[in-house]
Amino acid sequence: MTRVLYPGSFDPVHNGHLEIIEVAASLFDEVVVAVIRNPQKGQGLFDLDERTKMIEEAVAELPNVSVVSLSSLVVDLVREVGADFIVKGLRAVSDFESELQQAQMNLATSRAHGEIHTVFIPSASDHSFIASKYVREIAKLGGDVSSLVPAPVARRLEERFPDKDGAQ
Amino acid sequence: MTRVLYPGSFDPVHNGHLEIIEVAASLFDEVVVAVIRNPQKGQGLFDLDERTKMIEEAVAELPNVSVVSLSSLVVDLVREVGADFIVKGLRAVSDFESELQQAQMNLATSRAHGEIHTVFIPSASDHSFIASKYVREIAKLGGDVSSLVPAPVARRLEERFPDKDGAQ
Amino acid sequence: MTRVLYPGSFDPVHNGHLEIIEVAASLFDEVVVAVIRNPQKGQGLFDLDERTKMIEEAVAELPNVSVVSLSSLVVDLVREVGADFIVKGLRAVSDFESELQQAQMNLATSRAHGEIHTVFIPSASDHSFIASKYVREIAKLGGDVSSLVPAPVARRLEERFPDKDGAQ
Amino acid sequence: MTRVLYPGSFDPVHNGHLEIIEVAASLFDEVVVAVIRNPQKGQGLFDLDERTKMIEEAVAELPNVSVVSLSSLVVDLVREVGADFIVKGLRAVSDFESELQQAQMNLATSRAHGEIHTVFIPSASDHSFIASKYVREIAKLGGDVSSLVPAPVARRLEERFPDKDGAQ
Amino acid sequence: MTRVLYPGSFDPVHNGHLEIIEVAASLFDEVVVAVIRNPQKGQGLFDLDERTKMIEEAVAELPNVSVVSLSSLVVDLVREVGADFIVKGLRAVSDFESELQQAQMNLATSRAHGEIHTVFIPSASDHSFIASKYVREIAKLGGDVSSLVPAPVARRLEERFPDKDGAQ
Amino acid sequence: MTRVLYPGSFDPVHNGHLEIIEVAASLFDEVVVAVIRNPQKGQGLFDLDERTKMIEEAVAELPNVSVVSLSSLVVDLVREVGADFIVKGLRAVSDFESELQQAQMNLATSRAHGEIHTVFIPSASDHSFIASKYVREIAKLGGDVSSLVPAPVARRLEERFPDKDGAQ
Repeated sequence: MTRVLYPGSFDPVHNGHLEIIEVAASLFDEVVVAVIRNPQKGQGLFDLDERTKMIEEAVAELPNVSVVSLSSLVVDLVREVGADFIVKGLRAVSDFESELQQAQMNLATSRAHGEIHTVFIPSASDHSFIASKYVREIAKLGGDVSSLVPAPVARRLEERFPDKDGAQ
Repeated sequence: MTRVLYPGSFDPVHNGHLEIIEVAASLFDEVVVAVIRNPQKGQGLFDLDERTKMIEEAVAELPNVSVVSLSSLVVDLVREVGADFIVKGLRAVSDFESELQQAQMNLATSRAHGEIHTVFIPSASDHSFIASKYVREIAKLGGDVSSLVPAPVARRLEERFPDKDGAQ
Repeated sequence: MTRVLYPGSFDPVHNGHLEIIEVAASLFDEVVVAVIRNPQKGQGLFDLDERTKMIEEAVAELPNVSVVSLSSLVVDLVREVGADFIVKGLRAVSDFESELQQAQMNLATSRAHGEIHTVFIPSASDHSFIASKYVREIAKLGGDVSSLVPAPVARRLEERFPDKDGAQ
Repeated sequence: MTRVLYPGSFDPVHNGHLEIIEVAASLFDEVVVAVIRNPQKGQGLFDLDERTKMIEEAVAELPNVSVVSLSSLVVDLVREVGADFIVKGLRAVSDFESELQQAQMNLATSRAHGEIHTVFIPSASDHSFIASKYVREIAKLGGDVSSLVPAPVARRLEERFPDKDGAQ
Repeated sequence: MTRVLYPGSFDPVHNGHLEIIEVAASLFDEVVVAVIRNPQKGQGLFDLDERTKMIEEAVAELPNVSVVSLSSLVVDLVREVGADFIVKGLRAVSDFESELQQAQMNLATSRAHGEIHTVFIPSASDHSFIASKYVREIAKLGGDVSSLVPAPVARRLEERFPDKDGAQ
Repeated sequence: MTRVLYPGSFDPVHNGHLEIIEVAASLFDEVVVAVIRNPQKGQGLFDLDERTKMIEEAVAELPNVSVVSLSSLVVDLVREVGADFIVKGLRAVSDFESELQQAQMNLATSRAHGEIHTVFIPSASDHSFIASKYVREIAKLGGDVSSLVPAPVARRLEERFPDKDGAQ
């Protein structure tokens, strides 16, 4: 049985994330989605509870996917949930370098207690441009993000940033 | 008649931006420069009015260039000013990926009401290293930016960050 | 009136190329597709005549697109056909650097007789992975390329590389 | 049970490849290494039989790794050997783009008969610079490659390119 | 005699930085490490004094290395310390572009008073993933960074972020 | 005294190469330019003797620059000429990755007999687009390369590829 950990900020989860979750759920036996607080990214738009909730609603149909939320190092999280390795999505070259550094960092700092590897799943090309920061920016300015995020996220964004005049 | 929108933060406009405006003004009939507030970049050094003013002074000789300033989504702005498409400059690989994602995002979210495309104009190689953040940094530390920005910007930066001792 | 030149090897033309042609034809008044012999790429799979023919068939529905084939420098070709500037597609970072170098080279070597600029149109993300070399490789090994190329190209590839056993 | 296919040219297999095989063998139940003929890379230094033999000798200690050699499309090979997905190594940004395009191409052309995904395993950073082309080049010029390749490969390279004078 | 300036934020210095210092000290006669305040990076974890102190302790064994700390432009600093050129490390592609832009900016803005060049020393590949931001993040979350930084830095990080429960 | 080796194919030498030679000659005591046969690049346009001759003519004014031509590994060449380290130019991201791999390869394979390092000098941005392959391609098609290469190279290219009709 293969259990994988899929960590991320997910602020908010979008269709590109969901694609990675679905592919991971089809390739491996169990997928644990881990909502982590990224100290580099400041406060965030949604708090950890809201982010977790939105993912749970979006993956409700996938029986082998669960969601956790913790403020700890990813390598510690892997051991806590008993995962075999980490799964990350890859969209673009700029992602790749920073993800590769983190994967090598996680491998280097985990060696003392058993190596923790990261495997990458590429985004299908028609999702490769979606990023949470663009979703937040468009929503703040009253734009329509319904083609970029799952329905529970679109609904919450609309509540948070009501369209000023219905027009756009 | 082809009208293009050239959006950016322009905090402040520099010679690399001016080059793109001049090339666009030579290739297309009308260029509308749009000073946009980038929520990701925080407060900024100059406010929107100052940024707009400096561009207007720098492009005063170009009859088919106008400047607007608005807090709205770029795709909405395109429709408001009646532009045919978006023009962006490209300096470097790191620009390219983020610009490509934004172009694809703008295309994807505009499809319902008519596709909005982005075309890219590369910087001539001798301007490719100029970025607003370096201009701000050098000016703050009392360095000479007169070879990097148009005269109206150099003057304002000197007013804002007077050379402490006349030396250097 | 804006006339643009879209040069390339097109060995063979694929759906990613067609997308660029269609976008260019919607943004500009006239598009001249130029099939050029790339000395660096050796003999090629199809000769210049076949490549030209296939594009002509694929763009038959687009009234403002024409196709030429010549063995000359791109900057000379721009002048011969009276184009205002060059248009190129951009798929990926690796494309970008080489295209940028060629654009700067064309600009630098054309300056004596009037600057020739290049503007870039990004591929929609769902075509960004298609490259002629993969099309040739898959066709040679008997794979199905009908979702990657226009029908006239698929037909010719099948004639050239008939499926050995009807299976697959 | 998870069976993965690890395809490549392996001309010759080097320590960076072996690392990927070892990691894959530790993460998944069965690893099938597929030596494929890359039509774009011409004749090659070793023929398919020699390449296969060298890998078999290098992975002799790994019970869940087997080696095959076939001239067919990777997506067909996945089905023939009953693999669940493709595994590839990732060393560098330049690898990444071409690997991503191939992964998306394989996904797009396999959709009709069941999607075939690719997952990527990053090289540990101390192997990230090894490439078969450098190994071949150094060996041809009489250099020492024993720190870059497994012993069976070093031996064959020495036979093929005997050191002219024992010096160096 | 060749004297070089090695500027950086060093918040905190890590083993990748130390490697560059050691290589520079072996290739050139004198190395001046300059701890600079990066206005773009905000407050920082350690103040300039602490950063300087930690480097001094880490390079105590290298007789031809000294450390300075100043709030001025790098090009001014080069002249103040009488350096012949700037030395920077290169880890990854993302580093490269921004470092190249800064090198070209420094060259362009120094031309009036004598050109100031930058030469780059690549990180050995087994350090290429270490970045100060990951060191800070891991230390904040109670992780073990002793394999990533010199001993004086590890000690200070432990004092600053004591392990909450001794476990982990 | 610092002696550096600057290796390359130089087929032919162009203004971007000359810039690196001039900067290296201003920063270091002696520069040895090494014309190497690159087995991956096939036959080449000029033979090793012609390439060497053209560089000698182009650097005739620089007293501390010499030129050698040898078919051996770069790391062996460093020892033969008594150089302290290797110098390479860097133009673009695509250069960078392959140069970094070669630098790490040279470091790894030289460790047994004393580490051989590589330092990189970036091209000034107004030369960053020049590459020998574009020079060859333009010359073959009768274009004007006099702004891209030193005079001795322009003369030889004209002899080799006389302009067919005097026009252009």
